[in-house]
Amino acid sequence: MTRAYNFSAGPATLPEAVLRQAQAEMLDWNGVGASIVELSHRGAEFMGVAAEAEANLRRLLSIPDDYAVLFMAGGATTQQALLPLNFAAPGQTADYVVTGHWSRTAIRQARPYVNVHVVADGEPGGFRDIPPRAQWSLSPDAAYVHITANETIHGVEYREVPDVGDVPLFADFSSSIASGPIDVSRYGLIYAGAQKNLGPVGIAVVIVRRELLERAGQPRADIFTYASHAARDSMLNTPPTWNWYLLGLTVKWMLEQGGVEEFARRSEAKAALVYEAIDSSGGFYRNEVAPAVRSRMNIPFFLPDETLTARFVAESRQAGLLGLKGHKAVGGIRASLYNAMPVEGARALVEFMRDFQRRHG
Amino acid sequence: MTRAYNFSAGPATLPEAVLRQAQAEMLDWNGVGASIVELSHRGAEFMGVAAEAEANLRRLLSIPDDYAVLFMAGGATTQQALLPLNFAAPGQTADYVVTGHWSRTAIRQARPYVNVHVVADGEPGGFRDIPPRAQWSLSPDAAYVHITANETIHGVEYREVPDVGDVPLFADFSSSIASGPIDVSRYGLIYAGAQKNLGPVGIAVVIVRRELLERAGQPRADIFTYASHAARDSMLNTPPTWNWYLLGLTVKWMLEQGGVEEFARRSEAKAALVYEAIDSSGGFYRNEVAPAVRSRMNIPFFLPDETLTARFVAESRQAGLLGLKGHKAVGGIRASLYNAMPVEGARALVEFMRDFQRRHG
Repeated sequence: MTRAYNFSAGPATLPEAVLRQAQAEMLDWNGVGASIVELSHRGAEFMGVAAEAEANLRRLLSIPDDYAVLFMAGGATTQQALLPLNFAAPGQTADYVVTGHWSRTAIRQARPYVNVHVVADGEPGGFRDIPPRAQWSLSPDAAYVHITANETIHGVEYREVPDVGDVPLFADFSSSIASGPIDVSRYGLIYAGAQKNLGPVGIAVVIVRRELLERAGQPRADIFTYASHAARDSMLNTPPTWNWYLLGLTVKWMLEQGGVEEFARRSEAKAALVYEAIDSSGGFYRNEVAPAVRSRMNIPFFLPDETLTARFVAESRQAGLLGLKGHKAVGGIRASLYNAMPVEGARALVEFMRDFQRRHG
Repeated sequence: MTRAYNFSAGPATLPEAVLRQAQAEMLDWNGVGASIVELSHRGAEFMGVAAEAEANLRRLLSIPDDYAVLFMAGGATTQQALLPLNFAAPGQTADYVVTGHWSRTAIRQARPYVNVHVVADGEPGGFRDIPPRAQWSLSPDAAYVHITANETIHGVEYREVPDVGDVPLFADFSSSIASGPIDVSRYGLIYAGAQKNLGPVGIAVVIVRRELLERAGQPRADIFTYASHAARDSMLNTPPTWNWYLLGLTVKWMLEQGGVEEFARRSEAKAALVYEAIDSSGGFYRNEVAPAVRSRMNIPFFLPDETLTARFVAESRQAGLLGLKGHKAVGGIRASLYNAMPVEGARALVEFMRDFQRRHG
């Protein structure tokens, strides 16, 4: 068995140590005679796994006590519909900043429930920059301000928390959570599909200031109500237990590796390697994102033409570098450098890029 | 490693062969150098896994071509909220038959969106029987009629499809799907959380007559819209890929074992063993469900007092029989006999029951 370097944008590479533990425990978790995926979510075994995952996530991200942490089935898109349902009155305005594809997805899910006000839009600039805070036209009475902390397709990332005054700031952190310190107290709510930095697909994490859970929101089913999930420790219904377990193993691994400060260092190092390879290629590889907001997690880049792009994808795969084909919305190549991608993976990619250019440039 | 017999009501026991295959492929699926949980849902590898799972499920359940099959994150509870959102106009009436705890859950999720009309309620009879069809007060203009095919807590199961005329019949089949032949054409929609008979927790299957997807329903987000999921082959957003994969392995295993006819035989045999042990115990074990609707999947039974019940749970666990504690809503003992439970497991339980009675009766 040879493990490839997997640059997929999500579902994404997981730490080998985590997969090995899951493999070892697949038929018998902790000597109980059954897999964790076969055990009741209400039994002592899984309750322990769930509680430990939450405690470790709180430690990893320094989550203050006045924030609830929810583990919910599905991904970020579902949360994007739940935000207005839970936190906006019918017809109220919510502010959205558009910095790429996933900001638009958030708006599409919210629009049936709220008056969406786009306070700034990076599209006229080709999503190569994040519109500066000074140019945002915030609504005084918005239910919340929504940002996308990192755009996996367009490769732009906030490097600072924008100041939005007293209106709660909500952020989609799906693709950059735990890649560095986050000052959670600056946000009203943070949500993230787990399948990039936190572990497996099929589960999302919501970190929400508890006082916000008192908002009435809009008529909705109990299963769509954050306060109900919080009151039942995310066991309002049967949660995705195996996904939660694997998330717990991944979070524990991140703590053992040195926590978010260490992953901030690694992320800077990996991203610097790849951007340097692009910028020193004499235009063979192109990434036009403003350097100040270049994503450390997802690096889209382009070759001179589509034939070379297709060849790059095919040859990199042969070389044991998976998942480099760019998203169909923009084409080109995309390298995702999540926490489970070792620095050696970024080095292998850069070597391949240089060799490919020598042969085809 | 010793595998116990796991009678948990869900998450529940899985076929050992399925777990062994998942274990073998955990670090490297099919030689690609990555786990299936790490691969893009839009890549050829997972698309193949997803398509094969659907084709095999269609074969297993003989699903007609004019039905869409959806694979969605989460469990049955989410579907219970989506039913009225997708298929009922605001303020329209929907008919619900109450046969136990899970019928009530379905109503609780639906009530914010629809005028719930309870056409029959088994609670006055202690949920020991299913109210006969002749006594149901169906609404002529209902959006749909909802039933719970099997009640995991109260242990009652429909043995026949009720005739509800031209109104589409919707059924929660979470705990009995694939335990025997289903005439899908008699239903407008069937939904099931996978974690009992179909595989792992964290994914639900929806089988819906395509023409129903044309109903306008109510204002809602795209992510809550069945037609959108159907149009994108359940890849509207990132699906729970690992859960889908494990479901596929489980469905394939069921086909290899002989399909639903074989599981109908095994289910009758397992249930007959346990009911016979109860009925021949001279009242030491009690199950008061009307024999005609006794569930083949979940058998709740009661001992003379709570001390004996607690002892039964503790001693059975020692004997390698897991998950027998009854649901907190009713207490007592519950044995779940899903497809992955071998007949030998039911025999081991019956032997334990007889031995326990000899020692404590």
